[in-house]
Order: sequence, then C-alpha cells, then structure tokens
Amino acid sequence: MKQSVITGSLGSLGDRFILEGYKDDIPFVEKVRQLADIDGLSGVEVSNFGIEGNAKETAKILSDNGLACSCVNVNIACRRIYGRGALANADAKIRRQAIDECKAAADYAQELGADVINVWPGQDGYDYALCCDYGKLYNDFLESTVEIADHNPDIKVALEFKPREPRNRSLVDNAGTALLMALESGRKNVGVCVDVGHVLYNNANMANAVELCGSRGKLFHMHTNDCLGTWDDDMIVGSVRFIEYIELCYVLRKIGYAGWCSVDIFPSRENAIESARESIAYMRLFDSLVDRIGIAQLEECIRRGDAAYVQRVIREKVFG
Amino acid sequence: MKQSVITGSLGSLGDRFILEGYKDDIPFVEKVRQLADIDGLSGVEVSNFGIEGNAKETAKILSDNGLACSCVNVNIACRRIYGRGALANADAKIRRQAIDECKAAADYAQELGADVINVWPGQDGYDYALCCDYGKLYNDFLESTVEIADHNPDIKVALEFKPREPRNRSLVDNAGTALLMALESGRKNVGVCVDVGHVLYNNANMANAVELCGSRGKLFHMHTNDCLGTWDDDMIVGSVRFIEYIELCYVLRKIGYAGWCSVDIFPSRENAIESARESIAYMRLFDSLVDRIGIAQLEECIRRGDAAYVQRVIREKVFG
Amino acid sequence: MKQSVITGSLGSLGDRFILEGYKDDIPFVEKVRQLADIDGLSGVEVSNFGIEGNAKETAKILSDNGLACSCVNVNIACRRIYGRGALANADAKIRRQAIDECKAAADYAQELGADVINVWPGQDGYDYALCCDYGKLYNDFLESTVEIADHNPDIKVALEFKPREPRNRSLVDNAGTALLMALESGRKNVGVCVDVGHVLYNNANMANAVELCGSRGKLFHMHTNDCLGTWDDDMIVGSVRFIEYIELCYVLRKIGYAGWCSVDIFPSRENAIESARESIAYMRLFDSLVDRIGIAQLEECIRRGDAAYVQRVIREKVFG
Amino acid sequence: MKQSVITGSLGSLGDRFILEGYKDDIPFVEKVRQLADIDGLSGVEVSNFGIEGNAKETAKILSDNGLACSCVNVNIACRRIYGRGALANADAKIRRQAIDECKAAADYAQELGADVINVWPGQDGYDYALCCDYGKLYNDFLESTVEIADHNPDIKVALEFKPREPRNRSLVDNAGTALLMALESGRKNVGVCVDVGHVLYNNANMANAVELCGSRGKLFHMHTNDCLGTWDDDMIVGSVRFIEYIELCYVLRKIGYAGWCSVDIFPSRENAIESARESIAYMRLFDSLVDRIGIAQLEECIRRGDAAYVQRVIREKVFG
Repeated sequence: MKQSVITGSLGSLGDRFILEGYKDDIPFVEKVRQLADIDGLSGVEVSNFGIEGNAKETAKILSDNGLACSCVNVNIACRRIYGRGALANADAKIRRQAIDECKAAADYAQELGADVINVWPGQDGYDYALCCDYGKLYNDFLESTVEIADHNPDIKVALEFKPREPRNRSLVDNAGTALLMALESGRKNVGVCVDVGHVLYNNANMANAVELCGSRGKLFHMHTNDCLGTWDDDMIVGSVRFIEYIELCYVLRKIGYAGWCSVDIFPSRENAIESARESIAYMRLFDSLVDRIGIAQLEECIRRGDAAYVQRVIREKVFG
Repeated sequence: MKQSVITGSLGSLGDRFILEGYKDDIPFVEKVRQLADIDGLSGVEVSNFGIEGNAKETAKILSDNGLACSCVNVNIACRRIYGRGALANADAKIRRQAIDECKAAADYAQELGADVINVWPGQDGYDYALCCDYGKLYNDFLESTVEIADHNPDIKVALEFKPREPRNRSLVDNAGTALLMALESGRKNVGVCVDVGHVLYNNANMANAVELCGSRGKLFHMHTNDCLGTWDDDMIVGSVRFIEYIELCYVLRKIGYAGWCSVDIFPSRENAIESARESIAYMRLFDSLVDRIGIAQLEECIRRGDAAYVQRVIREKVFG
Repeated sequence: MKQSVITGSLGSLGDRFILEGYKDDIPFVEKVRQLADIDGLSGVEVSNFGIEGNAKETAKILSDNGLACSCVNVNIACRRIYGRGALANADAKIRRQAIDECKAAADYAQELGADVINVWPGQDGYDYALCCDYGKLYNDFLESTVEIADHNPDIKVALEFKPREPRNRSLVDNAGTALLMALESGRKNVGVCVDVGHVLYNNANMANAVELCGSRGKLFHMHTNDCLGTWDDDMIVGSVRFIEYIELCYVLRKIGYAGWCSVDIFPSRENAIESARESIAYMRLFDSLVDRIGIAQLEECIRRGDAAYVQRVIREKVFG
Repeated sequence: MKQSVITGSLGSLGDRFILEGYKDDIPFVEKVRQLADIDGLSGVEVSNFGIEGNAKETAKILSDNGLACSCVNVNIACRRIYGRGALANADAKIRRQAIDECKAAADYAQELGADVINVWPGQDGYDYALCCDYGKLYNDFLESTVEIADHNPDIKVALEFKPREPRNRSLVDNAGTALLMALESGRKNVGVCVDVGHVLYNNANMANAVELCGSRGKLFHMHTNDCLGTWDDDMIVGSVRFIEYIELCYVLRKIGYAGWCSVDIFPSRENAIESARESIAYMRLFDSLVDRIGIAQLEECIRRGDAAYVQRVIREKVFG
C-alpha cells in the first residue's frame, strides 16, 4: 500500500465561520520535511498552485526528503474565480482557464514523476432549482475532461466525485456518475478517484465503490479519511469506522490496486502532522489485519454472507 | 402528462412495527373503481402478482373503468423468498425464479397494452461489511437484466434506483449507477425509472436525474411522491417541496418525456385514494405553473442562474 | 455491565415490503432457552403482550433458564390500534387503553422482579404539516406519563427517544426533549432510555447523551445496537463503529450506571441468536478495553482533547 | 410580523474551500442603506464586533435609515480565538473573554434599543470521541450563560441551537437541549432562538420547535432561511419548502410571538440584498396565506389530522 498525504490537509484550514483559519499555515518545505518523518508514508500529493506549482523547486524538496509525488491535485475549486464553476463554468473564459490549468497540471505531474492528476470539480454543480441547464453542465464538463485527457495521454485524469459541498448539489456526485463520465469520455486515461468519506456520506459502501471502478480499470486514485456518516467530515482514518476499512483493504488487494492512497483530512483544530501520521498508521493497521485474518477466511465470510459470523471472525482474529 | 397510480399505494400498508398493516386492504376491482374517479388519472400501474397477475381479468377491470395499464411493477422485492436478493440472489434457483417472473411480467405487460415493466430490485443489495461479493452482485444483476430484456424486446425494462431500504445499501443506488447498467447492458430496451423521492433523499436533484436519463433516451418511467429529505417518505406530492416540482415539470417537457408519471406513495395512516387524488392534482398544478410562468421565462431563469431572480419570478407569477 | 436482549429482536422481523417477515417466529420459551446459552447475558427484556404478558409463565421460563427480567418493554407502538398514537392519541379511548396497558406493565414488571418499564412511544408523533396540535400532543403525553409513573412509584418509567420512524417526526425525539419531559413530569421515577442508535442517527454522540441523562439521575435504561449514521439500522453492536463504544463504556462507569444494557437489534436476514451473542460479546470487549487502556489514560485523553493523541493511544493499547 | 436581516448574511461569505470569500465585502453603512429599501423589513440584527460594535455610530446609521436594531448577534464563534470553544472553552481565560463579550453585547443591545442578544455557541461542542468531558462542557456553558443573563436582566439571552457545524457535534444541539438549559439556568431572561433550518436538518419540524419554546415563554428570537434537509444550507426562504412555512406562520400567531424574524441566509454566490428581499417577501407571503386560508380552516385541518384534506385545502385556497 503506497500512502501519501495531500498538502492541503496541512494548511491554515478555515471554514465559513473562521475564514482566517484555525491556525497559521506553515511553509511547503516544512510540511514536506515533517511528512518525511511519518512511518509508512512514501509520497506527497501536491497542488499545481502557488509555491507547490513550481516543478523544479517542488521536485527538489520532495527528493531531498526521499518522497515521491503521488498525484497532482488540480486547484480548480478553491479560488474565487471558480466560485461558480470551473470545467463547466457557464463563462467560456473561466472554463478555458480551468481547462488550461488542468492541462498544465498534467504536464507538471509528469515533470514530478506522477502519472495521475486528481480533478475534484467541487464548484461544478448548482445550489437552487431553476438555476442550471443540467444537460449543458454535464456536456461542458465532459468536453473539458476529454480535452484535458487528450492533452497528455500519459497522464491519468481521476475524477473525484462527491455528493455536495461547496455546491448544494455536485455534478459528479457519486461513483456511478463518475464512471458514466469516464466511459462516455471514450478516453482510456479518464477514470475515478474514490474518496472514501464521499462514499460514506452518500449512503454507500466504500469497498463497493472501489470494486465498481477497479473492475473496469478505472480506479486511478484513492483519498482516505473517516466520517460520521452525514457529511464530509474528513476525520482521521479509523476514528469512527472499523470493519469497513478492513473490507476496503481486502478489496483493494482483490482488484490489484497499484495506485496511491492519499490521506485527505481536515484537521482544523488538530495537529495536522500527527493526524496524518495516525491516518497512515491506521490504514497500515487495517491492511495488516487482512493478513492476520487471512484472505481465505475473508473469502469465506463473503461466501457465507452471514453478518454474525463475520463479527465473530473479526472479534476472534483481531481482538481474541 | 399521463398520470397513473401504483396499486401498491392503496393496500394495507404495514411497516416493521405494525406488520398487520395500518388498515384493511380492499379488493383490486374496488381500487380501480375508485381510481377511475380521480381527475387527471388515466392509468394504473399494476403488479404481476396475485389477483392483479391475471391478465384477462385485470384487462377487463381496467377497460371497464376506462383506464390504461401504465406499467407492470414487477414483484421481486416483497416476498420472503426474495428477502436476500432477487435478480442477483446468490442462490441460482431463486435468481432463476426472479428472472422468470420478470420475463412473464414483460409478456403480461404486453397483454395489458403497456410497453414498460418497472424493476425495483429492492432486495438486491447488502447490509453489513464483508458479506457481499460486489463484483459478482453487479454482474449477476446485469446478466439477469439482459436476459429479461432479450426475452421480449418490445417491452422496456425500467430499473428503479434507490440508495437503500430494505437493504442498508442497494446495488442500483442512484441515477448514475442505473444509467451505467443500462449502457453496459448493451440493450436498447434497458433504461431507468426515476422515483423522485429516491433522488431527493440521495442528496440530489430530481430534474437533473430526469435530464441525465432522458437525454440518453433512457428515461422509461417516473414515480412521483414527496419527502422530507433524509428517507423515502413516500408522501403526497407537493406536501413538502414546491419549486423543485415546477423545475421537474419543465425538464420533462424539455426532454420530451412521453411516458407515465405514476404516483408511488405510502399513505399508511391517510386515506389512500384522497392522497393519490391530491398527488395527481398537485402534479397537474405544477405542470400548469410551467405554462403560467412560461417556457421563455423559465429559460431566462436558467440562463441567469440567479436564485433571487428565480424566487422573484416564481413569487410574482404564481402568487402575485 | 448487566446485559440482556429484547425478545422483539428474535421474532419474525418483517418490514413494509415483506410483511410476512423474513423468517418464522419461534416460541418464547425457545427464545429464552437459546438466550440462556449466551456468555455475558444475564437477563431478558420482555414485552407485556401476548404469551410474554403472562407473569407466572414468563417468570418460570426465565428462572428455569437462570435469567432475570431486565425490563418490560411496553407494547404501545406495534399494534394497529396505536397506529395514530398511544399515550398522546387524539382519541381519548385509545389513549386510555395505552395508559392502562402501561400501568399494567409496571405491575407486571414488579412481578417479574424488574424495576423499570421501557416506554417507546413510536406512534406518538406526526407525519405531515398542519396535522398536529403540538402543544396538546406534548401535554397529553406528559399527563399520561405522570399517571403511569404515579400508578406504581416503585417502577421507573424510561422514555425512549427517537427522532423518527414509524412517524416522520417523533414527539420524544432526542435526549434533550426526553429530559425536559422527565423534569417537567416532576416525578422521580420518570427518566430516559438511551438507545445508542437513536442518538447516532440524530447527528449526536451516545456518550454525551448518556452523561446528560446519567448526571441528573435520569438514565434508567440502555438499548445497544449499531448503525451507519442516517437511519435506525439496529445492526449488531460493533459492526460499524469502534471508538465511540469505548467512550460509551467509559462514561457508563464514570456516571456509575447500574442499570441494564439491552441488545435492541433487528436481524431480519441474520441469525438472531448469533447476532445477539456477538452484540453482547462486543459490548464486553469494549468494556474490557476500558480496562486495557486504563481509566487514567482515558481521562488524560479527555483532558488533552487531542484527537490524534487519542487515536495513537487507542492504536497502541488496543492493537499494539 | 417584524422582520430583520442579519448583517452577516451580507458579507464576503467564504467557506473552507474559498477562504477569500465569494465576493467583496461592502461597508456596514452601505449594507444598512440597501436593507432600508426592502419592503417589509424594519430592523437589522447586528453583531457586537468590528465597526458594528460601535454603539453611537451604529445607532445613527440605523436611525438615519429608519431601521430598528432587532437583536445583537454575539460574535463568539467566528474568530480564531474561539476555534475550540467560547462560553465552555476549557481555557478559563478564553471562556472569560467570551463571557465578557456577551455581557458587553447585552449592554450594547440596550444602547441600540434591542431587548435580546442572540448567542450562537457554534464552537462549543466537540469533534471526536474521547476528546470531551461532556458534563463539564454543559456545566461550564450553563454557568457562563447564567453570568451573562444576570449581568443585565433587562436583556433576554436567546440560545441558538444547531445540531452541528462548525463542530461535528454541538453542545446546544436541538430545541429540547436548549429548553433544558433555559430551565436549568433558573433565569427568566434565558431562552431560545429557533433557526428554522437548524430544526429542519435535525429531522424535526419548525412549528413544533417554535410551539415547544413559545408555550413556555422561551421563544426569544427567530432566524429564517430554507434548506434541503440534510445540512444548514441557509438558502432563501421559500426556495425549497412551502406548507411548513404556512404552518410556522400560523403557530407564531397561535403562541402570540411578538419578537423578530431575522433572515439568516448565506448567499455566497447570490446577490445578498436580493436574496434577503425575497426571503422577507416570502415570509410575508406565507403569513398572508394564513389569512387567505383562515385560522378557522387551519384549525379544522389540525383537528382532522388528515394530510390529504390539508393538501386539498391548501391547493384550493392558495392555488385555486
């Protein structure tokens, strides 16, 4: 399991009530230095923006710390210009800028040795009824995605779905819609990023989402975190759920996932590095539990489909 | 707008606490007779089970009351035999029975003059982690669907998605997954039924779901009701939401939807016929408001994408 | 920790789709015999209805199996007569019947050696706007509760709150409302039953609910289960959540809770006895983890309020 | 119906993704000038912070525009210092500062001619398990509230409950908890602010919450907005729901509410003034519909408790 952390998780982290952020930001080089100290972490998911957007400098900082670039997380949802949409913005000029930034991000990823960009189109959606041409929204987005994918076919484009936030409704809202887009793009290098919290708060199961994408060769990237079930809480991995993560790790092996798992948390009031460290440690723990329980035993669980039996197996193997 | 009512809405209606039902059932013939009295209703969505499953008798009852059969609602989720799945049941024998019942339902629909069967695979899903082979679940379901579709290519097969209930997680959980299946089936006569409540409680927008399916020629059927937003409340249309219905009626025209809108409510404590009557009256009201506001004005709303403007237009045109 | 199981968890278990139930019921005596075999179980929570309602017979069956009666679960939500309300039914005759049944249940509990009745007023609520006099609903309910409490002051009346289901909105919807009622009743023997799943799917924390009630001497009873976060899933304890249960067990000790924890699950498709067995085993596990981690260490966690630190402590102490 | 707007609704409005805000802020004096132009608006709910915190200047701006101060909205949730709590912050110094600011706000309200301060303790809550001493949190908060209430007994202290955000779990989470606190404070001038969106996304009914508080003389303030049902969307009033607002306006009359209804929306991408204008217009519309339908007719609806009948009455009286 190749694990990295999104640098965005380590920033100032504000929200709509505390715009100044819950803490001070720290310089990128310092973030990387601190991440390098985390057991089990071998990469960093960077943004193509600001200081991080400088390929040479970023490459040097990463290599100085013995870390790979796992992925470039395209910055098209977190600036005012994209407040009403990016890849499907009704304003052609803004849409063009978003496309161009994604293309540049693909080249930038290649320079950093990553083979995937993560496209989270958080602002491509809508808030109120009668304010959106849904067909156009979808088609514009798809057309933009194809253009990005064709710009650099060596780089995979991972669409990160999410039901809502910051829009009340997202265009790319769940695994089904993301896969539909990937297929309708007709491009081999368009696929999906599964953020497990985005699955959970959509009343769905993360292992199922992963298998749905992975069995079509479309699981390009993973974001890990935890949540209470009704919102994208972006909590430390393992702070709420338990067995579902074991299942996730099992299915990641089953589908032969060779990509990265990037910690995507929002530790506004927590120590960010320690929160990332624990998230990575918990993912390793869950993955190690797959071995402790054993693949054959897990397959037997699934074959039986008997929840009480599953609970007993977990209890005896993990806590016995 | 062609409107019908699902006969299941008019039954005894129990739940997990009151299994005996909140009221007595009434005979099918009596249900149809009472429905015939509802202004704006021209059809009935029947089941292929029990007394309703007798084509000759059912056809006569419908024609005696001047009503069409809008759709046959396949009964593969509401009997104990299907309690752990129907079209994707791990037990090949049960799966076979479910497939055969759906095929028979297609022929039965044809006898009744309907061109669509509604397949709600409520029991095809899972409840706990590590109890389900997700890939197999999907593939088995798809294979079953293809077999049903091929049995009678004149009859459309509408897959009704729903995020959950009665399983904690449904296989066909949202519009994206349903469309993915329709496309992967490779069959022209596999499409989607959009139940608006199923969209709403999945943090999504019903008009968007309708346009996503309709613009691909895959909107085969509609179920109408209302809900509070976090569960499949199956309430009377218009008892909670307002503007979203106007948008829905507008988009149904935009995509040229020529199918049926079937009232699918669960009036366990209410008068079922009066609840159906109001649901139909409200759908007509919302549809008439499209005219009152005017297509050009609605297009201008969407073009502007300005929620305050939309609210003003609605207020002045509808309540002014 | 005194643990019991609600007999209702072991029945036929249907839902609004499969009214015939997902399996056959088994006789009460057989249920008790099977429960007696579960490690860590020392009681049974019975209903005051049907065969269970016969004090002599029930007492003998329990004692023959070496089990106590933990609580009597009043049956005022699961029969058609109470479909539109019980203790606050607008029909005075039905309301009277519900009150009298609760009084009888209190006496019956005393005969069985229990000191608490559990009142879950599932049908006392409402579904639609403009259909309920909220003030009257509350006052009628409170008046009924006082009458029940005064009938047998030796028996504690535990009000079980729940946000919704089977009504779209419950009157006694959360811990705050239940405590308000307990205080406004002015009766020492009116308190609260905390069903942990009811807390979770109300966007709340179960340990907090328990401490809120317990610190006022009002935690009279507990129901245990697990859920995915958006509905009352009544799943096997420990099948979803993890750390929250450790916290719950810690707080139960902190407040000196001396009452029962009754397993309240809904294993419609699962083996009910095995599901109960695992629920009890998991509660014991979580309680034993309090010892393994240590009270002092847990207090240090809480004192620090540092989530990353907490995660590390749990990881090292539980899985290290 | 006395209506005002919270000035916070008119600001730069960012969120955790766009911290710079979706638009530029405008000066306070300009906000008030624009609000003065809204039909049906007679007051402004101000903050006790920044430029608004200057009593003389603010009073002049309001009177120059013919507007009253409806309420002072205490600013204890929107600055970094309060990021881990205000009135129940574990740090006694921060807690002291929060208390003192609330006391000053009470005096400031009096200077402006308002008789209520709105205390939304958004940061008093918790995020993760095992990070909070729940009993202490509640008691500290209550003690702070009492001190504030006693500082200026002429000023009412309205506690605004909310299930979550910005904390994963709020201390004052729903109407029941808020009322419990008001009663346990033992102070006449401690009551509740009902934000209707906070009720809705807690699976509850706004009219019920209003009546619960109002019938105890504890409804001190109201915040109006709309939401989709699963989050605090802070949308324009009437943009989603319909009948529930009519019921709300009816119950506000029934309990004789003489306080203010303040528009509390979050129009980050919308024109803020137009959004406020429509919110106020819709509240007036809903209130006028109470007259059009008639109190006697509404009482008959409630007496019958028949949802289909209610729907028919609304349809005929409002749209007929």
